[in-house]
Amino acid sequence: MKLGILGAGQLARMLALAAYPLNIKCNFLDPTADSCAAPLGTHIIKEFDDESGLAQLAAENDFVSFEFENVPATPLQSLANQVEVYPPVKALLISQDRLTEKNTLHELGIETAPFSAVNSLDELHQAVDEVGYPGILKTRRFGYDGKGQAVIREKSQLAEAWKSIGEVPATYEGFVNFSREVSIIAVRNKGGETRCYPLVENVHRNGILYLSTVLENDPLQQQAESMINKLINELDYVGVLVLELFHAGDKLVANEYAPRVHNTGHWTIEGAACSQFENHIRAVCGLPLGDTQVNCPVAMINIVGDLPDTNEILKIPGAHLHLYDKTPRAGRKIGHVTVCATNNNELQSRIKEIGKFINW
Amino acid sequence: MKLGILGAGQLARMLALAAYPLNIKCNFLDPTADSCAAPLGTHIIKEFDDESGLAQLAAENDFVSFEFENVPATPLQSLANQVEVYPPVKALLISQDRLTEKNTLHELGIETAPFSAVNSLDELHQAVDEVGYPGILKTRRFGYDGKGQAVIREKSQLAEAWKSIGEVPATYEGFVNFSREVSIIAVRNKGGETRCYPLVENVHRNGILYLSTVLENDPLQQQAESMINKLINELDYVGVLVLELFHAGDKLVANEYAPRVHNTGHWTIEGAACSQFENHIRAVCGLPLGDTQVNCPVAMINIVGDLPDTNEILKIPGAHLHLYDKTPRAGRKIGHVTVCATNNNELQSRIKEIGKFINW
Repeated sequence: MKLGILGAGQLARMLALAAYPLNIKCNFLDPTADSCAAPLGTHIIKEFDDESGLAQLAAENDFVSFEFENVPATPLQSLANQVEVYPPVKALLISQDRLTEKNTLHELGIETAPFSAVNSLDELHQAVDEVGYPGILKTRRFGYDGKGQAVIREKSQLAEAWKSIGEVPATYEGFVNFSREVSIIAVRNKGGETRCYPLVENVHRNGILYLSTVLENDPLQQQAESMINKLINELDYVGVLVLELFHAGDKLVANEYAPRVHNTGHWTIEGAACSQFENHIRAVCGLPLGDTQVNCPVAMINIVGDLPDTNEILKIPGAHLHLYDKTPRAGRKIGHVTVCATNNNELQSRIKEIGKFINW
Repeated sequence: MKLGILGAGQLARMLALAAYPLNIKCNFLDPTADSCAAPLGTHIIKEFDDESGLAQLAAENDFVSFEFENVPATPLQSLANQVEVYPPVKALLISQDRLTEKNTLHELGIETAPFSAVNSLDELHQAVDEVGYPGILKTRRFGYDGKGQAVIREKSQLAEAWKSIGEVPATYEGFVNFSREVSIIAVRNKGGETRCYPLVENVHRNGILYLSTVLENDPLQQQAESMINKLINELDYVGVLVLELFHAGDKLVANEYAPRVHNTGHWTIEGAACSQFENHIRAVCGLPLGDTQVNCPVAMINIVGDLPDTNEILKIPGAHLHLYDKTPRAGRKIGHVTVCATNNNELQSRIKEIGKFINW
């Protein structure tokens, strides 16, 4: 079987590595010649909206998937007429627009932060009147890792914030007074069967994910599963879906979803019976879903910017190094470390140990 | 870093898959154009003794290793003059000749079956007088999976046995009255540090490995480690080494060793903290060794001959499918299944369940 992937970055790379043992070959469309997944399959070096590139990807593969949200919508829709594309294009289109996304969640009864659409500075004034301070102005489209966002704490900041995001269509969202950020990862197959991984707690640095720690038997697991199940069924979804959540008081509040394998699920390679990558491939290619059970107390630490002393990391028991073969650059994710342990104390001490070498 | 491998079969394929997350690229020399590891690296399609192919492998890689024992010795020795080759060529040369191998084990005080060299039918008569019946006549070179062997139970079979193995230099070995076959896998780095995986019990069908089950905390673990440690140090070994053993009475008797990653270690991909493949790469490339600790009760079943109904296998909890992208053919290893469980009863029941679909 052959699976075409739009994008050939680290997510595509880990998908391709998971696909090999299933005798599934991944092939890629990506305009960047030295993309890190490229050595693992056929690489069509063309823009994501290049008609001939998309036609080739459709012709040479049994299914097509994507590794990031900002795939241009129109060519993807035309691609979906030529070959089975999963996750469904609808799920991608909604996620590309924060307002549509928030509205979708809201309509499903999935609680979100209070939000309001902003298309002008005037509308921003109205939005803060409605939602209150503090809040965050976010571009509706093309934001990631904290980019395209501005925190607003008082009226004097409104004009500057509107300018800073480029005066483009946006949402203004009220702050959620959360104690921690968590995410839930689910996988759904074509028959509608859904499996969830356990909740993961996520810690960010400079707006970029630093640490994900798996929360086994967390009391909020059921609430999180109920939320993502509503969404995954509404989207008639196939593949891995991630819902980012705030834990506020005794409840969960949805932030956003990602229609793809996700950084907060990288721990599943060693930490779960079947990884998010293998499960995404199984779902997309119509194979039975794999077991989402957790193997051990486990966490993941991102490597961002410079390459640390990897030999020191390899020496740490339970540490698993994953490098993406990407040139180090400030703010760039170039790898991650999964760390397993026999109990939570040991896990915390290993996380600290790894943190001595991964320091960004 | 780049690692050249002589051979591009399933062992090279699993080595290459383990190497990617370490940013190590494997490249291959193998005369078979459609070798199953080939899509994972540069593939030099030349004979193993082709001077230009070997020179290219040496020039384009930082280290060279091999995935099978029957690499021609002379070109490998010349290769070792151009690039660092691990495991050491000496370990390979000894293992290529059953007589030298048995003598080496014997001289190290590692118990083996009684054996005698056979270079003619006359010498076979002398050997059986010395060793007794029953016994096995084995060619000194190029035997695997039971090929090049003849069981001898009485005098009338001698001439036929000698003819059947092609009248080539051989050993005659007395039968060991064993209760089970086991193997121990060790990895040693350039600094002489050695780590062992737990003993594995192996069950064969038609002379081909069918099932390997990990024996955690087996009372014979220490004896096995002591045996392989003698050998691995004598060989000044670097990489993964496997010693096949018979369990006879209360002791272990060495059968043969393999200077490479081994079929009885495939379970380590999911069943151990660091797999035999990753540890071989770490050792050969001079990185710190990984943890050989076992994750759970675990076993491995080979897929030989026809492709089973893989969807049924994927449905079994704890089962991990590994296909090698090889055309099915009678007696050919085309994949394996690793199966993990939470306890031994569950493991045995899952092995049986998998056995319903893998039946050769």
